Amino acid sequence: MSENETAPAAPHGGWLSDEQLRAWIAFMKVRLRMSFEMNRQLQADSGLSLADYDVLAALSGEPEARMTLSGLSSKVGWELSRTSHHVKRMAIRGLVETRRADSDRRVTEAQLTDDGWGTLRTAAPGHVELVRSLFFDCLPSEMVSSMATIFETIDANLGSLPEPTS
Amino acid sequence: MSENETAPAAPHGGWLSDEQLRAWIAFMKVRLRMSFEMNRQLQADSGLSLADYDVLAALSGEPEARMTLSGLSSKVGWELSRTSHHVKRMAIRGLVETRRADSDRRVTEAQLTDDGWGTLRTAAPGHVELVRSLFFDCLPSEMVSSMATIFETIDANLGSLPEPTS
Repeated sequence: MSENETAPAAPHGGWLSDEQLRAWIAFMKVRLRMSFEMNRQLQADSGLSLADYDVLAALSGEPEARMTLSGLSSKVGWELSRTSHHVKRMAIRGLVETRRADSDRRVTEAQLTDDGWGTLRTAAPGHVELVRSLFFDCLPSEMVSSMATIFETIDANLGSLPEPTS
Repeated sequence: MSENETAPAAPHGGWLSDEQLRAWIAFMKVRLRMSFEMNRQLQADSGLSLADYDVLAALSGEPEARMTLSGLSSKVGWELSRTSHHVKRMAIRGLVETRRADSDRRVTEAQLTDDGWGTLRTAAPGHVELVRSLFFDCLPSEMVSSMATIFETIDANLGSLPEPTS
């Protein structure tokens, strides 16, 4: 993503600065490798994919562990079609239930089942152990605080966007 | 992921500290929302999904823009079956080519085509513009430097793991 002669056009605001590029490359490498490692650990220890875990964790944070599929889509960062397909497969496995929303029969909601809750609770300790050992154990505490502040700043910036389609 | 009475077991090293949990939640929210926004922008402006872009960008960084499917899997953080399926669909669209590796006929390699290069170059400016405006414009430069250092530290820690299956 740095400037190079073969790129046909520059972004309006120019390319990233060297320092931004350095931060972005490191962020992307960690994002992709962490996804791989989290997925591998979850599969091996709990028979869950990272995508399954993201859905279980997203639902578990909502009142009555229930969300519309479009709300769930924006929370986990997927297109609606992927969410719909994935939730259907999780429902077959008994981890979630889907139903028409009382407030609007055209809207589908997903809710954690008791089995879904149990699966999440059983998977959580191993997942947290992995996150701590791969992500946090190498960081001095002042870096953890800086990281929290940096990502809360970006999250607030993202929160000023229009909501994802709901 | 914080301690609660219903969790059946704690991780070996204990749950995350409050500050680690704060950093992790902010990181995950940004990770998921950025995925959603990057995917939406790429789809709208270039007809690419974020997954397509990740594959194009991963290949473009390699010598001859070529990788084995298992190398590509670990670089983009997917299971081999997902990579294999996704690359097959990108090959139908002419963005990549696949072939048996000269060095080992059992191994499949993927390589960017000229069309794949052209698509990546055309998509890059809009993608970078989005990343800059959503992710970097809200950060003072000292936070960008801190973030680079933090993620390079984590990346070095991840680099000490055994390589993903290759």
